[in-house]
Amino acid sequence: MNTSGRHFLQIPGPTNVPDRVLRAMDFPTIDHRGPRFAEIGQQALEGMKRIVKTEKGEVIIYPASGTGAWEAALVNTMSPGDKVLMYETGHFAMLWRKMAERIGLQPIVLEGDWRHGADPNAIEQALRADAGKDIKAVCVVQNETSTGCASRIDEVRKAIDAADHPALLMVDTISSLASIDMRMDEWGVDVVVGGSQKGLMLPPGISFNAVSPKALEVNKAAGLPRSYWDWEDMRGPNAKGFFPYTPATNMLYGLVEAIAMLEEEGLENVFARHDRLAEATRRTVRAWGLELLCQEPRHYSSSLTAVVMPEGHDADAFRDAVLRNFNMSLGAGLSKLAGRVFRIGHLGDFNELSLTGTLSGVEMGLAIAGVPHNKGGTQAALDYLAETSPYREPIKTAAE
Amino acid sequence: MNTSGRHFLQIPGPTNVPDRVLRAMDFPTIDHRGPRFAEIGQQALEGMKRIVKTEKGEVIIYPASGTGAWEAALVNTMSPGDKVLMYETGHFAMLWRKMAERIGLQPIVLEGDWRHGADPNAIEQALRADAGKDIKAVCVVQNETSTGCASRIDEVRKAIDAADHPALLMVDTISSLASIDMRMDEWGVDVVVGGSQKGLMLPPGISFNAVSPKALEVNKAAGLPRSYWDWEDMRGPNAKGFFPYTPATNMLYGLVEAIAMLEEEGLENVFARHDRLAEATRRTVRAWGLELLCQEPRHYSSSLTAVVMPEGHDADAFRDAVLRNFNMSLGAGLSKLAGRVFRIGHLGDFNELSLTGTLSGVEMGLAIAGVPHNKGGTQAALDYLAETSPYREPIKTAAE
Amino acid sequence: MNTSGRHFLQIPGPTNVPDRVLRAMDFPTIDHRGPRFAEIGQQALEGMKRIVKTEKGEVIIYPASGTGAWEAALVNTMSPGDKVLMYETGHFAMLWRKMAERIGLQPIVLEGDWRHGADPNAIEQALRADAGKDIKAVCVVQNETSTGCASRIDEVRKAIDAADHPALLMVDTISSLASIDMRMDEWGVDVVVGGSQKGLMLPPGISFNAVSPKALEVNKAAGLPRSYWDWEDMRGPNAKGFFPYTPATNMLYGLVEAIAMLEEEGLENVFARHDRLAEATRRTVRAWGLELLCQEPRHYSSSLTAVVMPEGHDADAFRDAVLRNFNMSLGAGLSKLAGRVFRIGHLGDFNELSLTGTLSGVEMGLAIAGVPHNKGGTQAALDYLAETSPYREPIKTAAE
Amino acid sequence: MNTSGRHFLQIPGPTNVPDRVLRAMDFPTIDHRGPRFAEIGQQALEGMKRIVKTEKGEVIIYPASGTGAWEAALVNTMSPGDKVLMYETGHFAMLWRKMAERIGLQPIVLEGDWRHGADPNAIEQALRADAGKDIKAVCVVQNETSTGCASRIDEVRKAIDAADHPALLMVDTISSLASIDMRMDEWGVDVVVGGSQKGLMLPPGISFNAVSPKALEVNKAAGLPRSYWDWEDMRGPNAKGFFPYTPATNMLYGLVEAIAMLEEEGLENVFARHDRLAEATRRTVRAWGLELLCQEPRHYSSSLTAVVMPEGHDADAFRDAVLRNFNMSLGAGLSKLAGRVFRIGHLGDFNELSLTGTLSGVEMGLAIAGVPHNKGGTQAALDYLAETSPYREPIKTAAE
Repeated sequence: MNTSGRHFLQIPGPTNVPDRVLRAMDFPTIDHRGPRFAEIGQQALEGMKRIVKTEKGEVIIYPASGTGAWEAALVNTMSPGDKVLMYETGHFAMLWRKMAERIGLQPIVLEGDWRHGADPNAIEQALRADAGKDIKAVCVVQNETSTGCASRIDEVRKAIDAADHPALLMVDTISSLASIDMRMDEWGVDVVVGGSQKGLMLPPGISFNAVSPKALEVNKAAGLPRSYWDWEDMRGPNAKGFFPYTPATNMLYGLVEAIAMLEEEGLENVFARHDRLAEATRRTVRAWGLELLCQEPRHYSSSLTAVVMPEGHDADAFRDAVLRNFNMSLGAGLSKLAGRVFRIGHLGDFNELSLTGTLSGVEMGLAIAGVPHNKGGTQAALDYLAETSPYREPIKTAAE
Repeated sequence: MNTSGRHFLQIPGPTNVPDRVLRAMDFPTIDHRGPRFAEIGQQALEGMKRIVKTEKGEVIIYPASGTGAWEAALVNTMSPGDKVLMYETGHFAMLWRKMAERIGLQPIVLEGDWRHGADPNAIEQALRADAGKDIKAVCVVQNETSTGCASRIDEVRKAIDAADHPALLMVDTISSLASIDMRMDEWGVDVVVGGSQKGLMLPPGISFNAVSPKALEVNKAAGLPRSYWDWEDMRGPNAKGFFPYTPATNMLYGLVEAIAMLEEEGLENVFARHDRLAEATRRTVRAWGLELLCQEPRHYSSSLTAVVMPEGHDADAFRDAVLRNFNMSLGAGLSKLAGRVFRIGHLGDFNELSLTGTLSGVEMGLAIAGVPHNKGGTQAALDYLAETSPYREPIKTAAE
Repeated sequence: MNTSGRHFLQIPGPTNVPDRVLRAMDFPTIDHRGPRFAEIGQQALEGMKRIVKTEKGEVIIYPASGTGAWEAALVNTMSPGDKVLMYETGHFAMLWRKMAERIGLQPIVLEGDWRHGADPNAIEQALRADAGKDIKAVCVVQNETSTGCASRIDEVRKAIDAADHPALLMVDTISSLASIDMRMDEWGVDVVVGGSQKGLMLPPGISFNAVSPKALEVNKAAGLPRSYWDWEDMRGPNAKGFFPYTPATNMLYGLVEAIAMLEEEGLENVFARHDRLAEATRRTVRAWGLELLCQEPRHYSSSLTAVVMPEGHDADAFRDAVLRNFNMSLGAGLSKLAGRVFRIGHLGDFNELSLTGTLSGVEMGLAIAGVPHNKGGTQAALDYLAETSPYREPIKTAAE
Repeated sequence: MNTSGRHFLQIPGPTNVPDRVLRAMDFPTIDHRGPRFAEIGQQALEGMKRIVKTEKGEVIIYPASGTGAWEAALVNTMSPGDKVLMYETGHFAMLWRKMAERIGLQPIVLEGDWRHGADPNAIEQALRADAGKDIKAVCVVQNETSTGCASRIDEVRKAIDAADHPALLMVDTISSLASIDMRMDEWGVDVVVGGSQKGLMLPPGISFNAVSPKALEVNKAAGLPRSYWDWEDMRGPNAKGFFPYTPATNMLYGLVEAIAMLEEEGLENVFARHDRLAEATRRTVRAWGLELLCQEPRHYSSSLTAVVMPEGHDADAFRDAVLRNFNMSLGAGLSKLAGRVFRIGHLGDFNELSLTGTLSGVEMGLAIAGVPHNKGGTQAALDYLAETSPYREPIKTAAE
């Protein structure tokens, strides 16, 4: 097993945590009821509002994985037996549906083929068919981590509006947050579900709900039992930067630093960087003669790329060869895609050379694992990245 | 505000995180589905079994605060409307009770005066009175963080046995874990609830259930809805060191290191150290002429000491003086004790000189805040600690 | 051996490195010829000028121990056979003298009793007696780390002026830098010799010369061979923030952070804090009935206190008892003071409670080692520190 | 300026410091006279002997840059006016020569063309011509960092033996230590000069002499003045793991960790890894149609590769384009090579994907800077690295 040098963590999350974030977390825990903590708490809560682009909404931070934030979104807004419309974009959408069932909801699932994002027309039709307005929420995964297909949330919003339906719009942004744009207020998203360990560049351990005024109104009558996840318990202490129970203090140190990094680069620049690295990846995959799992260019994910293995070749054996030979972790195919696809994460604290290193590792792994492909895929990325670099022109000094 | 030098974090948790643990956490996050992770996961799960002294039971680790582990203990074992016997040792016992109500249980509360641990006789009587065996669990806080009173879990066990009652025994060890002995198997504890940020010397962010075979049996029929907290989902992947959703990887790095530190010192030595530092603290409080909140010596806590403020003096004004003048955080009185007590945490990564520094800060704070007291309390700690040091004799070399 | 909790490093340097400095150092090394480095280099060099209070002088930073900075001061200003007037304040002054001899100089030593700082009158007389102006430099240790006696550099300056002598004034500030005031320009110091590991709160590894225009002039004709230590080689690249050979990059990260911390607190506040903690220490020593090594109150050091052991008691056996029982390192007596004194460091990143913890450890160690003393010394520090706290008054809010 | 993601530090040192080393250094400084330090000191000194493969020799560790270790080697063995034979392999050999002159030695320089390692025949002839045995030392740079040419130290040894000359053999290993084999005892090297910031994977700040018994003998009569660098002062305290003045404690923590990492991988595997990555780099350079600076394959360096810029193109403008566009630092041409070559560092904590990322950055930089080259150079590295991976075969489990 090759363990030399720096590991390339190219699963689609957790991502490579930057040194600044790790070091920010590496400070002694402080009193979560004291004045210094209040400042950090407020910075974290306010900063996250800027990340999801809400001024009207509020952010809730849980000491929990993203899975907990899914549960929080549902138990704070729903009552037993409520119907929720869920779009089957892939494995994670189906896990969310399973959770909804387990806690007593009735998911109505719009089937998908795991190779596209959510179809707004299907959503619109389903809502129009719901004459009794029984559907309480539309649940969509913005970026389906299992497939590399990203749904267009702006279009989902339009579909709901076109159907003139009062359902809440709940969006899982776990692998899109801070990598792909989320305009919560503009798009009328009622609950954003997010996690720390992807575009936010933190280790896993905290997760988020961002909540619209409409969702807060619905919350008052929501009948599912809840305690740990209760928004209302959070809101009082949050107003002063505190939390109702012990928060994950050191993760919050890291969150404040991560937000600072994102804003130093500029959120729009961060998104553009992800778009460009994703496009370089797809050009490489095509140059190898391999197939992208995502079939709709408008749904290509900027966070990750899922690649279909040629018939007769096992994606996991290939991934194992890459890990063994080149000290790089790639993402596996999940549930029905197991063994049939591998996933390249290109999100978070990531740049051109990390990407070309990554693609090189894939290309060499294909060779070692005997997977048929055309050489030169990595070269396609080099060509594209050199051409499109935003820094091609020398920096002019004042004198010039 | 004095911010020079090292902050003394002497609330009863989160505690001063040792450098070894912080540094262990300060490594890049790795693939939570990869082989290196599996080793860490197994080390963490197996290590925690040794900490709670169970061979028969299993440990579940949540990316969550201790509050989440409370919820997990209940939703995994109870059905809607179930009765649970809860002992009012103080603020945290009452929060647990409130949670039980919110998720649909019927707590039967044995009232307490917040100045003693749980009374085994009262428990025995309540169970004997439960002819229909409707009480499904006895819930006790081993160390009540709000009062500094520790309940005797061995005696609670005997009380349940004496009543010949089948109820599960659930014990909150959040502020006792790794500071005060927990013999899960020997004492027949069915569910241990624990957190990371106290005796385990970690930041907050992960919490624990340790679960007996009996609790696992009960779990099968438990009817409360659950998803994030579900034990059964955890057990499958846990067997190989994995988790069903993304775990708090970097916290697990820290946990493995913390367990190593505890075992290097020796768990029994860790407990003895806590006992001795707690006794030094109580001698100091008495020498000041102040009153201990805990009235039963057999229930004195080795994790923290709560001190009653003299009439007419506000504990929070005093704590503020200590923070402002001496850069030390003390614990506040909670709910009905607000303003009336302050709490000194002396648990976790802590030693004699950190304690005498702490007690000095309290004594100087009393002077500055104008709280009547006898000088010389800190001196009492010095006398006791010097006398009882386990290292008084010079180390003999082989030649001698 | 007690290894629990945080070690108290109370030797008079290296000192307890604050987390902010350690974390600042814990970043990847960067290109020492690149633009980011230049900024750091300039911040370090400019910041150090503020620390020694020079606008006219320049600062040189060596990747070396303080001992190297001694050598640098001499080889950059002297020629073989030159005479230097050195004052025997203690062990370190005598090491500097030994170095001078080894590199070919002729030290003229003014004898001292190791219980006082330098006597300006003796210096004046020696200079007056030097009719031929053969003495090229007066070398004084500002704070003699072996004795806890601090020389008055302002008075030494006056003595040189009174003798109307052209000798350079060279001052070793290794254990006074950033703990005791150094007004390089105001006091006409020509070469300041400093190190990183004391008041600057860094690990050991870099050291300093601060150099006056007069010293730079003298440097041109100085005939001792030199290469690594050569000032002139440094000055060219330094002007742009660079160095002639690879600098200790990560130490420079820490230096920039340490300077930021000192300036956030305010240099004068830092000095006042050291003065106050030193006075508390002396009151404690007197209350124990022990003898201070330093016999002249005007020469008391604010960095450390050396304590004379009672006849018949071995200081090193005592120090060993303190280390063994209380996980604290104290400074040993050096050369002719070996076994007869111990030294308490109270400099750097240090506050009231760290000091009272330290003094408690000494007091308990005296008891365990059977050293005769009066109890209550630590109490004297508590009384003094509570009375003199600068933060006694509650912070008034705007509304009040 | 592109500052996203992880910086690629591909100068030929300082190198990318691995997280394990940075974290090992990120611990509080301890008492350099205490028992814990002694263990660390001994581990560092003993470990370094294994790295340079000496059992008969001793290692000296300086808190200093590599430049200091050069000076140490000379002042400990030479007397004023002594002749030393120095081979002009490039810029650094010439800096060493300049230093020798400045401290009063008479270097005899064997001229080189900066495109080959040292020529053993020339050395042999020069020694044979020295009938009076006036040459006291032969000084060779094992890996000339400015040119990427590595001298064959085994052959230099044979040349000295063939001439039957008693001169000491001194070898600068600054950019070869722990990257290219050094068999001190086997090759009869008398003084090894090394630094921390290259193959040892540490930040800059400590440097080394490894010293043969013969060199120690010569040291006794060596007449150059010395103090900071004196071997004899070091040897006494070193025997117990201590140092005569304050060592760079935290760097030593890192050194112990770095040695552990090297020995976990296995020194011979480390060398093989460097050889293979260097060969991949050269294949890439040739595929681009660019010229290697080093003209003798037997002298190719495994630490770095220097590439000649095509006529009319400025290497520094190219390097600037790479830094600006791809956040990677490359090494500049030095002195007479300024602007004419760039240098790729591929040493230290480095692996295949870091290398392909690096080469990609060079290739894209060539395109952006308009430097004529053939595409596909990076592809050549991919082909070679995939073919030669030592981990091509799946790991067989016991069952198979």
